[in-house]
Formats: sequence, C-alpha cells, structure tokens
Amino acid sequence: MTIRVAVPDAAMLGRLASAVGDDVELVVWRPGDPPLSGVTDLLVMPYTVSYESLRGLGGQVRHIQSQSLGYDGAGESVPTGVTLSNAVGVHEAPTAEMAMTLILASQRGWPEVGRNQDSQKWDRPMWPGLIGRRVLLIGVGGIGQEFALRIAGFGAKLTRVARTARDDTHGIDELPDLLPDADIVVLAIPLNDETRGLVDDSFLNQLPAGALVVNVSRGPIVDTAALVSHVRSGAVRSALDVVDPEPLPAGHPLWSLPGSLLSPHLGGAVQSMNTRVDPLVLEQIDLLLRGGRPKNIVID
Amino acid sequence: MTIRVAVPDAAMLGRLASAVGDDVELVVWRPGDPPLSGVTDLLVMPYTVSYESLRGLGGQVRHIQSQSLGYDGAGESVPTGVTLSNAVGVHEAPTAEMAMTLILASQRGWPEVGRNQDSQKWDRPMWPGLIGRRVLLIGVGGIGQEFALRIAGFGAKLTRVARTARDDTHGIDELPDLLPDADIVVLAIPLNDETRGLVDDSFLNQLPAGALVVNVSRGPIVDTAALVSHVRSGAVRSALDVVDPEPLPAGHPLWSLPGSLLSPHLGGAVQSMNTRVDPLVLEQIDLLLRGGRPKNIVID
Repeated sequence: MTIRVAVPDAAMLGRLASAVGDDVELVVWRPGDPPLSGVTDLLVMPYTVSYESLRGLGGQVRHIQSQSLGYDGAGESVPTGVTLSNAVGVHEAPTAEMAMTLILASQRGWPEVGRNQDSQKWDRPMWPGLIGRRVLLIGVGGIGQEFALRIAGFGAKLTRVARTARDDTHGIDELPDLLPDADIVVLAIPLNDETRGLVDDSFLNQLPAGALVVNVSRGPIVDTAALVSHVRSGAVRSALDVVDPEPLPAGHPLWSLPGSLLSPHLGGAVQSMNTRVDPLVLEQIDLLLRGGRPKNIVID
Repeated sequence: MTIRVAVPDAAMLGRLASAVGDDVELVVWRPGDPPLSGVTDLLVMPYTVSYESLRGLGGQVRHIQSQSLGYDGAGESVPTGVTLSNAVGVHEAPTAEMAMTLILASQRGWPEVGRNQDSQKWDRPMWPGLIGRRVLLIGVGGIGQEFALRIAGFGAKLTRVARTARDDTHGIDELPDLLPDADIVVLAIPLNDETRGLVDDSFLNQLPAGALVVNVSRGPIVDTAALVSHVRSGAVRSALDVVDPEPLPAGHPLWSLPGSLLSPHLGGAVQSMNTRVDPLVLEQIDLLLRGGRPKNIVID
C-alpha cells in the first residue's frame, strides 16, 4: 500500500523525507495550487491559512491535518467525506508561554516601558508586578494546563474555571463570584457559541479597577468595543495575542491606548514549532499506513 | 528603653505607626535633611538614593537599613561606627520575575513586537521562544534561587553556575565549557572585584550566534562597549535591567539597537515592595528593642 501526503512547503518535505519509506509519496502542494491527479491521502495545511481555503477539495483529499489548534468555522469549509484533524500538542505550550509573556510584560509596565526605551527616557515608577496577584484562568484544556505549570513558580494565586466545576476547578456559572477578586483574567477556551462574546460589558464591569484581561485563544471571545471602552477609561488593562478582527486594522484604538499590549497572533508561532509538528504528521502517516484513521479528528 | 527610627516618607511612617509601641519614636527624615538633635538608632534609607548620601552621618545614626540588595561601593560611604544592613528578602523575587519578563519578552520578539504595535504593523515572523532553550544561570544566591523556581515550568534546560562547584552547580571556572552551549545567559551575581567586567569580549565570543544576555544584577558586570559591539553585529541579543552607566545617557546605542531590550533598573520596583520592606524594618526594630543588633549587616 502506498499513500500520498501533501505538505505545504519544501522545507517540511525535506525534514520528513528521511523519516518515511517508499510507501509514502511526499509532494509539495497547497490549497489553491492546480489539482493533483488522483486522491491525496493526507493534506498538511499551511500554518496560517484560513479553513476557507479547504472548500472545493472534496474528492481530492481524504484527510486534512491542520497546523492550528482552533477549528472554529472549519465545519462549514471541510468538504463532506473529508476528515480534519487539529494540531493537538503543537501549540499549547508556546501559547501558554505567550500568555505568561503578556502577563509579565503588562505587570512590569509594557508597552509603556518599551515606549520609554524608544524615546530614550529613564523613568522608574512602581509597576504592579505578578507576585501575590490573583489570577483567574478560564479554560483548563491543553493551553490552560500548560499555563498552570508555568505560573506555578511566580507566587501568584491561581484560580481555575471550566465549563463545569470539578475538584479544584470552578464552573463558569460562578464567574459573578470570582471576577470581583481577579487581578488578572486569562482566556484559554475555544471559541464556540457558548464562549463568543463572553467578555462583554457586564463581565468587564465585575472586574476590580486596573485588572488585566489576557486573551490567547480567539479574538471574538471578547466584545472588542466593550473592551476598548473599559481600557480607554482606565478601568481595565488588556494584553491580547488575538483580537477581533484580525489583522487589527490601522487606526484601531487597541494599537495605541495606554495599558493595551498587543502581539499579532503569535501564540504558537515559535521557531521550535516544527519539532512538534513533524512527529504529529509522522504519527498520522503511520496510522494511515496501518489502515487506521488519523488521530485528533475534529470534523468528520 | 526608647529608640528613634527615621523613615524616608510619611507613607512608611503611617504604615509602621500602628505596628510599633510607645517605645519607638518614628520620624520622617532623609539623608540631606537638616540634622536631628541626638542620635537616631535606625535610619531606613530611601529606596533609590545612592550610598554616597550616607557620608557625614557619623555620630548621627547607629544603624542603617538599606532598601536595596546590592551594596557595592557602600563601604566607602558608611561612616565608621555605623552598621549597614541590606534588604535581604525584599527584592530577590521581583528581580527574578524581571529576569523572566526580559527573557520571555526577548524570546517572543520584543522590542520589535512593541515597535510593530506602535507603527500599527501586523507582522508575524517566527520568534525563538523559550521552550527547549538552554539557559545558563550565573549566580545561585537569592535571586538565582527565585529565578530557578520561576523558570521550572517552561520546558527550558537550566544549568547553574556559582563561584565554586557544588552538587548540581558548576564552578565559574567551567564557563569556557558552558558558554558555547548557552542560548540564554542570566547574570544574577553581586558586583565585586571578581565579577566586574566578567561579560567581556572573550565571554561574548564564546556564546553561540543569537544568544541572549540578560543582566538583572549590576551594570558593570558587563563591559558595555564589548556588548554593544556584539549586539550591533547581530552576534548576540541583550535584555538588560541594569546598565553601565545608569541612567543610560540619551543617544546610547543600547536604547535603539535591534535585539536590545531595556528596562530602567526596575528589578525590585513593584507595588508589592512595601509588603516585604515593612516586616523587615519591624523585625530590625524588634531586635534593637531587645538590645540586639540588626540582622543582614553587610558593613560593620
């Protein structure tokens, strides 16, 4: 049995070539390229393209491996009869690392400290810091677990929230009791009908003055207009790796408001990403060669 | 027995007043103010003044409590017959927190990501990240220990270096073997004759391309001219909370070079600092009232 695997660039092909046998035909092919003859067994999507690029691939591919963790909106674009796997294990740790980066930078004065660097100003106010702060983690999936590992040594007080309460984790229905005691809120939940717009005017009104809102999951979990209003008034600060819309348009207030720290959806984008993607793709190839189905299927 | 304790501002006086008895006369007084009549038993220095301000206080004070950890240069300024205590336990944790802040920010693309925010540019290259990186911690005192606690959850490979080898710690004489394998070097050692200029041209030449030099102890541990040369060429990056000289003069290349992240000696400067300073001062007061000597004496 021979299978065909399409990868998005020559670099990945080069890395995988030495790890597969003659029973795997590796080709470089991306959605939008002219169709290949015959059916491709596994298509590895480029990292940063939209799921909409998958429309029209019905009959051309059997399985699709995304290089992203989130798959909101994918259901409408994956053709009938094609499965989609998300990239479990690839982005959780770097995304949690980005959450810690955003928290520490904000709590120690960025973006203002960075602006002082650029204006060559030696200015030394006292910034809040993380020690002793009460951190509310909303979401205890892969990103949330990696986040909890990382914040453990910082002397902060971590409270966990999930859809339903369990052991040491509160249910999301308890937010009205929890938000007034949160110095920092970290959003690490998938985007779906339940979470869209979770951080709205009412949510923000319940936070204490000066609280920090950190989003590393998906932009639409936050009502952008409500957040802008609360940041502008100084009621809260924000540190966002994801926004709504993306890319954030020029002139949007989140670029420039004091207390608004931004990174352009870099959560999983670190140079070590390949060291986690390649083993996942090789595992999927192995499953297919043994006549099985890929793992981590999220659309079927 | 009654003692007189001079504190640098009314805020500290207010915080301490409710915690001491009638046997403590609390006054607000700072070096440079007109002399008080009689001898002050304990002088709490302002946080950010130089030890040189202590010259000439001979006969006016018995003990001095610094609010800093470092005391390089204090020996020349503390009058004969006066003891100086440093602020053990106050700054180690926030300084380690700043080291983590600088590492994470640098590894995830700041100051460039901050400059992109200010120019409203949505740019998404792959930055190095911290996962899997080899971190060489030079100094395993209070700051180093707090740093090790904090980096533990990040999936980095930590190697410890101290003046002399012990258990899991290498001796500083092993640096030639260690530097070529260090993606990140963290300086957490006191400034003294042995450590001044430790990070010189030779040290920097031994680092791998693109390594990050992090300094949270004292500026003169790094030969600034050598560092500037290596950052300018792109051979290394730097993330400095302390520099030589301080304040860094306008126009200095470390303000603006790509790969140079700066904070203006903010290591211990967090809003929770009082929650660690006040108990230390109260403990010193208690020791004096019981006829003892202050703890943490570094100049005697």
